[in-house]
Order: sequence, then C-alpha cells, then structure tokens
Amino acid sequence: MVCDILVTHIKGLVQVRDQPVMMVRGKEMSYLPVLSDAFLMITDGKIQSYGAMQDLASEITAKVTYNAQGRFVFPSFVDSHTHLVFAATREEEFVMKLRGASYEEIAANGGGILNSARVLQRLTEDELFECSLPRAWEVIRTGTGAIEIKSGYGLTTHDELKMLRVAKRIGKETPLRVKTTFLGAHAVPKEKTKDQYISEVINEMIPAVADEQLAEYIDVFCEQGFFSPSETERIVAAGLRVGLRPRIHANQLARSGGVQVGVKLGAISVDHLEQIGDEEVESLKSGSTMPVSLPGAAFFLNLPFTPARTLIDCGLPLAIASDYNPGSAPSGNMPFMVALACLKMRMTPEEAINATTINTAYTLGLENACGSISVGKMANLFITQPMASVASVPYHFGSNLVAEVILNGKFIPK
Amino acid sequence: MVCDILVTHIKGLVQVRDQPVMMVRGKEMSYLPVLSDAFLMITDGKIQSYGAMQDLASEITAKVTYNAQGRFVFPSFVDSHTHLVFAATREEEFVMKLRGASYEEIAANGGGILNSARVLQRLTEDELFECSLPRAWEVIRTGTGAIEIKSGYGLTTHDELKMLRVAKRIGKETPLRVKTTFLGAHAVPKEKTKDQYISEVINEMIPAVADEQLAEYIDVFCEQGFFSPSETERIVAAGLRVGLRPRIHANQLARSGGVQVGVKLGAISVDHLEQIGDEEVESLKSGSTMPVSLPGAAFFLNLPFTPARTLIDCGLPLAIASDYNPGSAPSGNMPFMVALACLKMRMTPEEAINATTINTAYTLGLENACGSISVGKMANLFITQPMASVASVPYHFGSNLVAEVILNGKFIPK
Repeated sequence: MVCDILVTHIKGLVQVRDQPVMMVRGKEMSYLPVLSDAFLMITDGKIQSYGAMQDLASEITAKVTYNAQGRFVFPSFVDSHTHLVFAATREEEFVMKLRGASYEEIAANGGGILNSARVLQRLTEDELFECSLPRAWEVIRTGTGAIEIKSGYGLTTHDELKMLRVAKRIGKETPLRVKTTFLGAHAVPKEKTKDQYISEVINEMIPAVADEQLAEYIDVFCEQGFFSPSETERIVAAGLRVGLRPRIHANQLARSGGVQVGVKLGAISVDHLEQIGDEEVESLKSGSTMPVSLPGAAFFLNLPFTPARTLIDCGLPLAIASDYNPGSAPSGNMPFMVALACLKMRMTPEEAINATTINTAYTLGLENACGSISVGKMANLFITQPMASVASVPYHFGSNLVAEVILNGKFIPK
Repeated sequence: MVCDILVTHIKGLVQVRDQPVMMVRGKEMSYLPVLSDAFLMITDGKIQSYGAMQDLASEITAKVTYNAQGRFVFPSFVDSHTHLVFAATREEEFVMKLRGASYEEIAANGGGILNSARVLQRLTEDELFECSLPRAWEVIRTGTGAIEIKSGYGLTTHDELKMLRVAKRIGKETPLRVKTTFLGAHAVPKEKTKDQYISEVINEMIPAVADEQLAEYIDVFCEQGFFSPSETERIVAAGLRVGLRPRIHANQLARSGGVQVGVKLGAISVDHLEQIGDEEVESLKSGSTMPVSLPGAAFFLNLPFTPARTLIDCGLPLAIASDYNPGSAPSGNMPFMVALACLKMRMTPEEAINATTINTAYTLGLENACGSISVGKMANLFITQPMASVASVPYHFGSNLVAEVILNGKFIPK
C-alpha cells in the first residue's frame, strides 16, 4: 500500500468519525471519539485511512513517515467567526479602556469600528493583503485549518469589496480554507444616516458582492445601538435574494431580539449570545440555527460569557469561534478558546473540542470536508506536543501545544 | 569599539534604567522608560551599552548584528514564584473540577498536593530532572530569564532535598538564573500529624537543606486548612537561624493572617493576596515586604484576583509571578500574566511590566543583575515580533510575541 504521509504510534487520534455527523448537540457533545495507539495515512491531500497500530499492514510505502509517540492528532480547528482582515491593531483604545475611559471618550478619540474603517480605507488592496497575511499564518500555527472572514471595516462599496477580495486571496495564497461573509451592516459611517447607509448596503453593496461572487454569507451587527431586528430582516432579505445565507451577530450587549430574528430568517448561526434568557433558548429550540459563542471577546472585554451549560443541557448544539478582531478580541488562538470554554463556561474538554471542530464546520457548510478524522475528508490536522490527554489542551492554557500542522495533506513549514 | 552582539534599529528598548532602582511602588509603577530607535551592545554576557541609533558610533565591530526594526527589546521576565519541578501534570483533577467535583471528592481520588507528592516520590532525581527540564525551556521561550523554584512536593527529607537538587541543576544545565526556596511546609503527609510533620520540617529538613546549601529562601503555605500564622512563625524562625529568608504564601483562600505574619517576620514577599482587606493593606504599608500577585492561579481556579489597584493606588509596590504548578496554575507564560494583570486587575501595561521585571527581581535579590536594561547587568533579554507598542504584550493575549531570546549574552536556539 502506498501513501504520501504515514503517521504512526499516535497516542490518541482525536475526533475519529467512521460515519461523519452533521453536528452534535446536547449530550452528544460530551462524546469525543479518540482512537489510542493509532496510525493515519494521507494521500492526495485527503485522509486515506486510519486504524489501530496493531492493524497497520507491514508493506506500507510512505513518502514521509512521522512517529507521533506520546502525541495526539486532532482535526484542524474550524474558526467560523473572524474579522481577520483588518488594517491596524488598536492598542491605544485598549489602554484607554484599561484606564477607565468611557465608550464615548473612546469614540471621540477615534476608537471602535469607525476607527478601523478609516484606517482600512486608506490602504490599497495589496497593502491590506500584506498586513492581514501574517495573521492567517499565525492562526495556521495554532491549529486552525478553515476559517470564516467577514468584511465590515470598509463601510463603502469600494472598501467592502476590497476586504472581501483580500479575504478570498488569503484562501488562495495560504493553505487555509476560507469562507467569506459580507458584513456591510457592521456600523453606520458618520457621514450618513442609518437609512441612507442601509439603502447603500441593500442597493449597492449586496448586488456588487453578488456580481463578483465575493461572499457565501451575509452578517448583520444586530445589537442595541447598531442595527435593529427589523433592519436586520430587511438587509438579510436582500442578501437571501442573491444567495447569501445569513449568520447573525446577536445578543452580545443586550437582549435585543437578535436570536429570534436569526432563527426566524433561517440563519445558519447566531453568534455571541452572552445576553440570553428563556425566550432566546426557546427560539433556538424551535429552529435549526446553530448558537455560536465567542469567548475571546467576553474574556477581553470582561463581559459575561455565553451560558453554555444552559444551552447544552437543554439539548441544543453549541459552536465556538474566536471572533478575531482588533477591537474586542485580538486573538485567533483556538486552543485558547477551548481553554476559555472549559475554564469560564464549564464545558468539558470533549464538548469544547466538538464545538470548535464539527459544529463550526457545520456552520460553514464544511461538514463533509473538515472537522473530523474521517476517510475522504481533507487532510487538515495537527500533531500535538507530547501530552497526557485531550484535556491537556485547556489545562495548558498558556502553551502552544501544536507541534506540527498538516493542511491539504502537506506539512506546513515552521 | 568591539562587542559580541549589536542589536540595531530597536523600535523601543524597554525598561531602560541608567540609574538602576531597587523596586518601584505606587505611582512610580506607571513609569516605564522606553528608548525609541535604539541600539544595544552586549559583551561577555553583560549589557555593555545602549543609546539612540543616531549616537551609534560608526566603527563598531560586532560578532553578530541583529536588525530589530519594528521590534521591541525587553529585559527578560523574572518569575519569582514557581513550582516548576514536579513529576506529573494533573489533567484528571482539572476535569473532575470542571464536572463540579468537590474538594473532598478530588482529595479522595488522590488529587491535590499529596497526589503530586506521591508521584514525585517514585521518581529518581534524574527522572525528575528529565521531566522538569522541558518546562524550563518552555518558559525560556516565552521570555523568562530568572526564576524561583520551590520544593514542596517531596514532603519527606529525602524527596524535598531531591527536588531542590533538581531545581539547582536546572540552573546549571540551562541558561535560566535559578533561585530555590524550601517549602517543606506545603501540606501535611497523611501518615503524620501536623505537629510531627512540623517537627520533621524544623529538626530534619531545614538543617539538611542548610547543610547542602540547597535553598536561599523558605516558604510556608500559610493558609486556612494548612499552616497557621503561629506555625508559620515557628517554621520560619528555624529557617532564619540557618540563613533562609522567608517568602510566604498568604491569603489565597482566606484572610488567615498570613500577610501580617509575613510582614512581622520580615519576609521578602507575601504571595497570592486574593483575600485582603484594610488590615492587610495597613500591615504591608508598615513594613518592607513585597506584595506578589499570582494571576494565573486566580484565572485557572476562577477565584478573585488580587486587588492590584487598591495596593498600587495607596502607594505600595506590587510584583507579579506565575505560580507555575500542576494543580492550580499550569502555566509559566509571563506575557500571559501581564495580560491577566491588565485585563483582570486593571493594571496598565507599564505597571504590569514593572511588576514582572524590576519588582520580581528585587524579591529574588537580583536587582543588580536582572529586571532592567542597565549597563553591567546580565544580558538577559528578548526581542519581540514586530508590534505596535508595549501595550501589544497584554493586547495580543493569545500570541507568543517573543521572537528571539538572549540569555547570558547568547542567542538561545529555537
């Protein structure tokens, strides 16, 4: 038998699914299949086979063999919510917040989304690509294999398209699998009324995004002080007409009806959910929208975390993504999101790993390509440092346990 | 002019102190001197000189030149409180806690300090060294240059000495500067009464530690359910008689009088301080004991953080260390401690960097060797990834920003 890469003596092959599942919910989330003392074969960028070491045929010819003694092999994380394309970090605003500055003071000093937009508008497409690219490589090194990237720091048709082109280019020029989301309705630029801007989003931006086929999804910042549920409906309806499926920012700062409108619109996901109660839970139970938690933002902003136990314990699924962005969550480190899920949201390591692999893959329509170790799926995976168990990922919250990354069946150079 | 290493074009040379200071307190903590567009020269393991690029003489001959454009150079972190020598990680106990197990259930399943002791007692000195060594290299890679290591998982004379010998050996076989602390009074082994064990600590362990010159400091786990203030006094008195200076675990779980006894005994530091009120603050103001916060433990255990603002705003100094240990703080990542200090304790980046360099160096008696960029100090420093400002360290909480490490004047291979 011949293969490109043979990984042997794997201490634990994690998330092995002979029968791929769409997503896992409720009690299913605590089941994480791990095959001990395993091998894995990769050919033509795909997972060719795996099994117990004792069943490994002796006449294998592999171009590369990796002995993973003491190490675990995970399917790559799928990060279903990021704003990884941006022009500049926002340390100054961060320090102002530490010193106790109010939201208004920060805005007056040019903080927030409008700040990111102003800086991004000045860059050419090439410049924006060059400054975003290192972030893509950094998340690759921490175990991410597929990622969603939103627009939303453009706020003009020209700049929103520029962002989406850059996001697409990251998918072409790195081994990351990239899905893009149009988030024109992220904030209202100063020089426009909200109605004017919504008209521009609906009548100019959405058709232009569709023409160039720059996005698979549409997002709206449905939040107190930004876009209301009814405005969200109007914008999403325009997106749906050109085939953009909704994934909605909801309930980060207030119970503003975002979850209910997301479910009503058939959103693939509603993301954030720090502020939810019985009505939101009932709404989620009535539909097929995936709840997504973004614990990096709650950690960075000192806001409450999504009540994960409430959601999972009543049978709902839960996915976890990074929200990587320069204002509220400046990290795309998915192993750290797993640690936050366990430490701050009382999820078990098994639940947190399901939430960051299978369930996020589902929200990106990648359930047949990513998120588990299954024959025929893309060979997107990572090999850990030697460690004790899958619980080592959240336990070692300050370590990068990702030793080797394989994407599309190839080792990623360090 | 000749030097071993010349670092040029440094965006910011951090913690430059022409006049070294012992430590900084209160308002002084918000002053962090940073020299822009700087050079740094290193010779014979020491900082030879530094200055503005425009003042760099043209006729320098350097064996190695490093262009640090866009990068910052920091003095290495000094981590003044760790239990880095241990036999095994404790993921199982971590998962039990996540599932809601009580302290009693964990203890019944062999958790806690006694668990660590049982596992450590089985290892030979060489085995213990081999399993601790990778942790030393990991903290080196995240920017630590000097470190305190405690005993306390031995709990017999033989095993306490074994731990301290291993800690000393880490100081010899790695470039880390190591200071050791005898913490025999960490917990009471099951087969002894507390009085019996205290007698053993005082009459057997302390003299043996002194005989072999294995420790500079003595620590006592002064905490509700462990050792009382009066027991702490007896043990520390015995240590002082043989020249071991106290640094005391105090007020992590309760206001048990640990701070007051530490100050009374002239401890160089009292460490933890999550549970303090006016009396403890007054006690600290009356003495010269350094308050030390260990935010990694509060983060991991979901306990309150040390009220840093209270301490600093009333003029006290504050130091921050990692508490790296397998039970309550499984990380020695000092940049992450800086992030926790800012995000969770409302310290500014400047305060947090002073707390992890100058102030921790002071508590280890290394104020003349480490903790700042000063001519004649050890060349223990790190060069960052390109970044915006010193605030990037806490802002990028999920990234390892340490690109290159220089210890004892030599680049550390990756």
